[in-house]
Amino acid sequence: MSINPNSHNVKSIFSRKERGFVHLVGAGPGDPDLLTIRALQIIKNATVIVYDNLVSREILQLVPNEVQLIKVGKKYNCVSTSQCEINELLITLANQGHIVCRLKGGDPFIFGRGSEEALVLERQGILYDVVPGITAAIGCGAYSGIPLTHRGISRGVTMITAHGGDDSYQIEWDALTHLDHTLIFYMGLHKVEWITQSLINHGMDFNTPIAIISQGTTNQHHHIIATLKTISEKLYQVSIKSPSIIIVGEVVNLAELINWYGIKKENNIHYEGVM
Amino acid sequence: MSINPNSHNVKSIFSRKERGFVHLVGAGPGDPDLLTIRALQIIKNATVIVYDNLVSREILQLVPNEVQLIKVGKKYNCVSTSQCEINELLITLANQGHIVCRLKGGDPFIFGRGSEEALVLERQGILYDVVPGITAAIGCGAYSGIPLTHRGISRGVTMITAHGGDDSYQIEWDALTHLDHTLIFYMGLHKVEWITQSLINHGMDFNTPIAIISQGTTNQHHHIIATLKTISEKLYQVSIKSPSIIIVGEVVNLAELINWYGIKKENNIHYEGVM
Repeated sequence: MSINPNSHNVKSIFSRKERGFVHLVGAGPGDPDLLTIRALQIIKNATVIVYDNLVSREILQLVPNEVQLIKVGKKYNCVSTSQCEINELLITLANQGHIVCRLKGGDPFIFGRGSEEALVLERQGILYDVVPGITAAIGCGAYSGIPLTHRGISRGVTMITAHGGDDSYQIEWDALTHLDHTLIFYMGLHKVEWITQSLINHGMDFNTPIAIISQGTTNQHHHIIATLKTISEKLYQVSIKSPSIIIVGEVVNLAELINWYGIKKENNIHYEGVM
Repeated sequence: MSINPNSHNVKSIFSRKERGFVHLVGAGPGDPDLLTIRALQIIKNATVIVYDNLVSREILQLVPNEVQLIKVGKKYNCVSTSQCEINELLITLANQGHIVCRLKGGDPFIFGRGSEEALVLERQGILYDVVPGITAAIGCGAYSGIPLTHRGISRGVTMITAHGGDDSYQIEWDALTHLDHTLIFYMGLHKVEWITQSLINHGMDFNTPIAIISQGTTNQHHHIIATLKTISEKLYQVSIKSPSIIIVGEVVNLAELINWYGIKKENNIHYEGVM
């Protein structure tokens, strides 16, 4: 970071905290080539990286050896660092003068709690910025050949989390099933039966196609495709690993036709990558 | 692109077309630092770039001098290249052996018609791939301090287009207003009054906050914030330029608190950028 010495307000920002900075960075869905230029710069220049479970191994391999790595992952049904502890950690590191890269899978402002951390940093007077990332739905859809919108099929997309977090959270199933467009469920792998049954109970055709994309855009990227009616049975026959994303809607049928990623993998086509 | 000579299927992909490749690339919302690593590689290595109006000037400045630039923009109420003509152009260029970068604002698979182009290329047996980009809602939200989701405020986000494209397209206003989460309207600047009135007529509180973000994430990034009731009047008093995005929901109120971008601009903080 450099400061323009001609700026009249340099003092005012330094009265926040003289040292330390927190970058709230989206790492995207997994493929390191889908990092933004800005995210890669920060990863290379941070003094400490505080990262989630959702950040792919391939991306962590880009971190320079001398940079401290702190894992604060959340995992389904596992003991994990609480949001409060993460907030405290960011404050402490920034106050120690660290350039902190708070690295999150996907985008920090879509189910990433980035805004909660931003509010904490604001209140503490710590300098920070936000670097958006490719959210899982978009990255995974592209690699599986599933467009989130497509003229004549779907004119919109809704992204929701199947993971409540608090008891008062209710999904508006009636509204969802009447949107008539693409639905994306984040963090839904352990609730597939509940999701599909709820959609059917609220009027969605049980033949509606559904895709579950696992470890999307990484070397382990794969998807299974079925219908609302058949997906649960299909899930018993295969092993699906987290992270995963669920896409519901007619656009899923395009995966069969838009197969660039399958061809790329089958034929070992590769490019000069980020490495 | 390099091909692994040990691959058994090299012949099969080359029986598609021996030369030419089309990359369907998302350029993100405007800030060149929000390009993905992959997008920048392709921009630097393409032999021709076919780009939209939505691609920012800053990003076009990254194109090497020797690379041919073809504009195929769509603009509100203006004569523009039809999708058919764009498809034909891509086919012709690929068949001439070009490495084509088809550069789109945002993400190619969210209101980008990228999937229509992918289907055409598939049918023609032309090699192609898809490079997801940061969609406008995510990029603009981050820079304006508006998270698309935030625990306790919004557990989901819906992105739709206010621009029909065909007469049969109907927005499901009733379902939208009952979702109780963040709503994003793409291509809605010329329809703000219709959007806000439709939301109010279908039961949304007229005090619901709304943001219009113009030229988001570029040097000209700015937003205006009002309520469903007051936004139209406010729009008469200011000049808002395309591209723009509309965000409706309680998360808009966080813009006041999450002001990293305002501080960065005021104080002329800058980083080593993509240039």
